Amino acid sequence: MSSSLGRNKGHNTDRDTDNNIMQKPTIPKGMRDFGPVEMARRNYIFDTIREVYALYGFRQIETPTMEQLTTLMGKYGEEGDRLLFKVLNSGDALKELSDEELLERNAGRFANKACEKGLRYDLTVPFARYVVMHRAELTLPFRRYQIQPVWRADRPQKGRYREFYQCDADVIGSTSLLNEVELLQIINEVFRRFGLRVRIHLNNRKILGGIASVLGEEERLIDITTAIDKLDKMGQEKVFDELRGKGFKEETLLRLQPLLMLSGSNREKLDKLATLLAASEEGLAGIEELRFILDHIETLDFSAELMIDLSLARGLSYYTGAILEVKALDTPMGSISGGGRYDNLTGIFGLDGLSGVGISFGADRIYDVLLELGLFPEESEVGTQILLANFSKEDALYLLPLLAKLRARGIRCELYPEATKIKKQMGYADSLKIPYVLLVGEEERLAGRFTLKDMQRGEQVQLSEKELLERFGY
Amino acid sequence: MSSSLGRNKGHNTDRDTDNNIMQKPTIPKGMRDFGPVEMARRNYIFDTIREVYALYGFRQIETPTMEQLTTLMGKYGEEGDRLLFKVLNSGDALKELSDEELLERNAGRFANKACEKGLRYDLTVPFARYVVMHRAELTLPFRRYQIQPVWRADRPQKGRYREFYQCDADVIGSTSLLNEVELLQIINEVFRRFGLRVRIHLNNRKILGGIASVLGEEERLIDITTAIDKLDKMGQEKVFDELRGKGFKEETLLRLQPLLMLSGSNREKLDKLATLLAASEEGLAGIEELRFILDHIETLDFSAELMIDLSLARGLSYYTGAILEVKALDTPMGSISGGGRYDNLTGIFGLDGLSGVGISFGADRIYDVLLELGLFPEESEVGTQILLANFSKEDALYLLPLLAKLRARGIRCELYPEATKIKKQMGYADSLKIPYVLLVGEEERLAGRFTLKDMQRGEQVQLSEKELLERFGY
Repeated sequence: MSSSLGRNKGHNTDRDTDNNIMQKPTIPKGMRDFGPVEMARRNYIFDTIREVYALYGFRQIETPTMEQLTTLMGKYGEEGDRLLFKVLNSGDALKELSDEELLERNAGRFANKACEKGLRYDLTVPFARYVVMHRAELTLPFRRYQIQPVWRADRPQKGRYREFYQCDADVIGSTSLLNEVELLQIINEVFRRFGLRVRIHLNNRKILGGIASVLGEEERLIDITTAIDKLDKMGQEKVFDELRGKGFKEETLLRLQPLLMLSGSNREKLDKLATLLAASEEGLAGIEELRFILDHIETLDFSAELMIDLSLARGLSYYTGAILEVKALDTPMGSISGGGRYDNLTGIFGLDGLSGVGISFGADRIYDVLLELGLFPEESEVGTQILLANFSKEDALYLLPLLAKLRARGIRCELYPEATKIKKQMGYADSLKIPYVLLVGEEERLAGRFTLKDMQRGEQVQLSEKELLERFGY
Repeated sequence: MSSSLGRNKGHNTDRDTDNNIMQKPTIPKGMRDFGPVEMARRNYIFDTIREVYALYGFRQIETPTMEQLTTLMGKYGEEGDRLLFKVLNSGDALKELSDEELLERNAGRFANKACEKGLRYDLTVPFARYVVMHRAELTLPFRRYQIQPVWRADRPQKGRYREFYQCDADVIGSTSLLNEVELLQIINEVFRRFGLRVRIHLNNRKILGGIASVLGEEERLIDITTAIDKLDKMGQEKVFDELRGKGFKEETLLRLQPLLMLSGSNREKLDKLATLLAASEEGLAGIEELRFILDHIETLDFSAELMIDLSLARGLSYYTGAILEVKALDTPMGSISGGGRYDNLTGIFGLDGLSGVGISFGADRIYDVLLELGLFPEESEVGTQILLANFSKEDALYLLPLLAKLRARGIRCELYPEATKIKKQMGYADSLKIPYVLLVGEEERLAGRFTLKDMQRGEQVQLSEKELLERFGY
């Protein structure tokens, strides 16, 4: 169970069979190996997010890599169904298929009968499935976080992979807007810890609904918001041309204009909006929700920029209240975090009436941003702190107890395992960026002294054991 | 990329489609959801192992969940091939198959053409693949650790799952026995931290080879070791009967007997063995290796029991030197950790000459043992430390800055999001095992005081903010 190939009593293997016929191996496209330096950086990101989630009372869950395809299919639209990785049934995968069905070669129908399981496509649907399955043992409101990889058979391209991590937090079973406030605080705190300046764009589905409503265009909410979304890039004239092309009347556009011209502080925007949306109950409700959030955020030490942004119109098919998106200020990069409130997450599995609100951090994009801006703390990349050089068999016997003492004090260290040329050992420390090398030749051993070499400065000092331990903070 | 379903601009979805037709969802057999309490315990295990690995200079890598099937097939024996989970090619999975091939319904041949990828079956083969692919950028010796799930289409049964974690550490590119010593220290330290008393069984492939050699039965090493392996359970008579049944001569059995009767300390066993295996160069080399390990371990503070155990005969098809296995002393449970030295890990991918030695911890079994023996530290299961009760809208506004102060000091806390009945809020704290509830009614707010309730003792005290912060160690 617990053991790997080389350690598993239960499985007979023969590692030598294919010895000389193997080609140089590869990994599937769109997937990645992470080496020690990348892992150290990635752990810094995950650990930071995990720690903040926990500080805010969120509790971690994990769901299986594979879900029943019935759980996944139809939840992500047609494109999503196509992008699911499907796992072939073990045993006779074809037994449910007649000869006619096989020869029909209908990829979708084939997969439905030959595959019962698929790989997790996101963390939201498995979370909804989890809540429904474990409803009886859950205490609501349930603040859960989940940091796991997901898989999509997307065309791989720069910054887009077929296996990547999501870092989600959701509160389910509470309609209180305090949850929105807390999630904004989490975003603020995570990026503060990363040293990354961000702007949080905030909108509310009800306001977008209100706009469509006062324009008398409830049915064409998506057309309107899609156009609004392009204001930044295209300017008002082109956006209006697009709307005209879709059959919007001049009169409607005239009424839309002041809504697009909102300027000033967040408060000023909401005040003007309240006048313009006075006829829409839904719109006014959305404004009240944003005011509640601002009221509370203003009592807090909040370093992120928070901007009411009416052009933010993501996830309109499921978000029902707050919508938010985060962008880095110092580098152009799409959204690095986002979220919103949905009123019926578990409805897809037949459990209605649970409102939720959640956020997600885009770990891969955050990685790229931190790397580009040089924001990874140096310590996060230091593995071993001290390499103990190995001059002879006798050295090793002498140094093992010292190693144990250093490690008992939490100092990460290792002894070079072979008594090989010192140049090679120094090269090892160098290429692994180990900051210190401890040299203990025969002479030093007899004198009970150690030579500590600072690899970056090239300096070395002679120390007693006590001085050495003190030097590293003890 | 980074975002989940509910947060992904790119994918249109409609969560409401299947609303009323869904059955209660399930998860694939042999797989598990991990709720918050299980996750807290699992993280305690993983974090402990991770921390110790890092202290010893091991560096983490991760490999993709999916590998090319060409990388995996033929590496785990026939049974292993059958237990691999295969991923259906995206797009037209059947395009490589002729009608004849489809109608042939040969499961293996079908999978070879419809599936290019499979799920990771262990961490050893992906590690070998990693070393070969990244050879140019690796500095040897390479001390790597890896903690990731693996998948096997095994028949699920108690304690045996289709998705489970492995926690491997290996040193590759060094033949020094100091690596064996360090890996034993890691095992000792991990179980010391868990508070778990263990016995490490230690043997050497060369000694087993030596025994077969002095008996003149090199060809039947497996028969001999399989029988020896049963000594404990069956006793010498039955073991000898089994060997007779396989055609071993009485004379051979007479010579085997003293080897099985070895008793005394590890040193005494090795001394006797050295006499008995005097004619086998290989056997003597194995004895010398074990002596080296004992010499070094004896200089150290080593709390695990270390036992030379000639009946330990796992992984004979790949281990070439040390073989080890760990068992808990206070509960009957199979191996909870194991490992050994192999001389040609990367040979399967055409890169010869790299010797390695590694260990693996069985996280799932360790979980069961710690739970059974009540060894999970209480702190490891505490999520939120303080719940702030919510009496009114005004409370919340007043409490958010206090929450922020507590969190800034690293105290995990949350505000109940709704101003609902206090009984319900207390029930929430109770069922989540939150140890403290902070009560701040209007009166207390005006007086700048807080009531802190200790949920376990049922006591409550009145505190100022300063006293509250001090109480939690600041």
